[in-house]
Amino acid sequence: MKLTVDRVELLKTLTTVYIAIGAKSPSPALMNFKLEMENDRLVVTGSNNEMTIQSVLPISRENKNIISDYELGATLISAKYLIEIIRKLDSSLVTIEIIDQTIVKIRDDKSEFKLNSMRAEEYPDLDLDISGEAVEFSAEDFKRIVAQTAFAASTKESSPIITAINVKADNDVIDFSATDRFRLSKKKFKVSDNHQFEANIPTKTIVEVSKLLDGGVVRMVISDKKVVFIYAETTIFSRLIGGEFPNTTRMIPLSFMCTLKINSEKFIEAMQRVSLLVTETESIVKLTLTEEEAVVSSRSEQIGSAEERIELFEYSGSPFTISFNVNYVIDAIKAAMSEDVILSFVGETSLFKVTSPNDESLVQIVTPVRTYN
Amino acid sequence: MKLTVDRVELLKTLTTVYIAIGAKSPSPALMNFKLEMENDRLVVTGSNNEMTIQSVLPISRENKNIISDYELGATLISAKYLIEIIRKLDSSLVTIEIIDQTIVKIRDDKSEFKLNSMRAEEYPDLDLDISGEAVEFSAEDFKRIVAQTAFAASTKESSPIITAINVKADNDVIDFSATDRFRLSKKKFKVSDNHQFEANIPTKTIVEVSKLLDGGVVRMVISDKKVVFIYAETTIFSRLIGGEFPNTTRMIPLSFMCTLKINSEKFIEAMQRVSLLVTETESIVKLTLTEEEAVVSSRSEQIGSAEERIELFEYSGSPFTISFNVNYVIDAIKAAMSEDVILSFVGETSLFKVTSPNDESLVQIVTPVRTYN
Repeated sequence: MKLTVDRVELLKTLTTVYIAIGAKSPSPALMNFKLEMENDRLVVTGSNNEMTIQSVLPISRENKNIISDYELGATLISAKYLIEIIRKLDSSLVTIEIIDQTIVKIRDDKSEFKLNSMRAEEYPDLDLDISGEAVEFSAEDFKRIVAQTAFAASTKESSPIITAINVKADNDVIDFSATDRFRLSKKKFKVSDNHQFEANIPTKTIVEVSKLLDGGVVRMVISDKKVVFIYAETTIFSRLIGGEFPNTTRMIPLSFMCTLKINSEKFIEAMQRVSLLVTETESIVKLTLTEEEAVVSSRSEQIGSAEERIELFEYSGSPFTISFNVNYVIDAIKAAMSEDVILSFVGETSLFKVTSPNDESLVQIVTPVRTYN
Repeated sequence: MKLTVDRVELLKTLTTVYIAIGAKSPSPALMNFKLEMENDRLVVTGSNNEMTIQSVLPISRENKNIISDYELGATLISAKYLIEIIRKLDSSLVTIEIIDQTIVKIRDDKSEFKLNSMRAEEYPDLDLDISGEAVEFSAEDFKRIVAQTAFAASTKESSPIITAINVKADNDVIDFSATDRFRLSKKKFKVSDNHQFEANIPTKTIVEVSKLLDGGVVRMVISDKKVVFIYAETTIFSRLIGGEFPNTTRMIPLSFMCTLKINSEKFIEAMQRVSLLVTETESIVKLTLTEEEAVVSSRSEQIGSAEERIELFEYSGSPFTISFNVNYVIDAIKAAMSEDVILSFVGETSLFKVTSPNDESLVQIVTPVRTYN
């Protein structure tokens, strides 16, 4: 194998694929990029067994030459060192060449690196089949769906099923749900064709895919145990998480006692200020509502107390008080992505709903905390 | 005590004083700012016992009113919470007021914080005397001296004396020396009057002082056990480090076998590239010199090898090879702050000198590493 390649293009491809390669891997082969020089393209593969990314670099793109002077072949190269070398070189072209079965030479006009390498045959067989139910999203839609749901998923590996985002298609509506049992974010997304499937996609995968997107269209292909995302020259394969996702529809209250409409930015700033005095593990803030005022407050025995009045609110109902984890409410308001936000309450100890006045596609639920005195 | 104060001015003062307050302190009182409202100024003090910073905020400065509506008095307030609150508020004025001996109220037009506080009398007595040998530096000179020496000091608390920068005045020349026993940086600085003193100033102190400077003049006052830096409205007090500083003059070779003049930037970039393959604990690079070429190279049994030819060099002498810790040499070249740098060698196993072609005030010495094959 041999090729001379545009350094910046190669770096982009390696950076994308590197996402799938963990800092530590149980398998030495998986610490490598697999580079395969084929007839008209270089294929770069990286994997941590759970997620695999494959990206192709064509010989030329839009009349721009990317790869020249090449010989077919394949090799494994240490991902960490190859990406560092390609990043640090400052020439526009680099040449990569297998010297013998165990050494790859990387050089530009000034520098020469000889990296110990492994044979391509030592790479594990990966399931790179792409078949199943396919749905297309614009990059913009996909990024918005992820931004509005992923934060609510659990990060605790002890409950694997809720570290996933549940994606459930029923005819032309796809529901994306994420919960850590203390809050729920549920986004409805309408598509143009009909589907019927349910899959629990690792939140990590879906977030990484969303970060890669920059315009254009991403295709999601769901099969029994696997999801595949296809975006431009890159394909991301990920296992699904097995098990039954909690019935989140039951978390959503159907009738409410009172409703607060409030300016998102002012509300967030006030909560951030009064929560300065509370520690991270117990960031509890109290919200006191009457028709005349909306007040957030907090109290810590050791440090002191804080309170702030918020302007720009509408509340009609009996005087009402509720306490909650301030981070959950701030996350929910940010996810609503709207100037004002609506909080709908059932009672002081019941789950409450956070929605946007002009977007019914997103419903968020937060658990309150029992009020201190 | 009571005052209404310009929030941004107070934040600047608190941020400066906060540098002296550690994240953890053995004494609860030292976790606080001491605030003293005097006749015409607010005095803010912070200390970790080793370094104390005192900064004053005048009632007005250049016709701009800073403090109004005040009553004399003093209190201690949790440094961490006060600075966070003042940072997060968004109004231009804040009012700070002692409510009773244990509570301080901080408020603007929207928010109100009540912080548990301690009485000013609970603050330890600090030695705030300012007397001794005084030397003045322009901020620019002082920052340059620190940038050229501080990096070479040891960070190992097991040898306290070499965690200091040794400052030695002999008539109108002051020598600043820093060493970690593997390298030395020695800067001569000429002053206008005569002095005779020697002091070992904690590198941490001198670096923090340098970071505070932004134009103007800083005054350094050395006494037996203490150094004081006076800069605008801020005074920094620091203990000195006891013990005898190593005789660093003996480290500097007097005659050399061969000399390399090389472009600083090209040399650093080449070393950074070839050292990509070496691990942090053994960042050893080999420099091979002949009249025709200058080559840096490295080799790691497990990972591979790298080499690069450097253009823009002048060398006359016998072929010569030396190996060194690449970080020490890069640090030394950066400290030289010049387009080209001169490396002067005695032999493959002897200390070598790094200097700038047009600045004799800075001498740097680096220990080589025994060459691998």
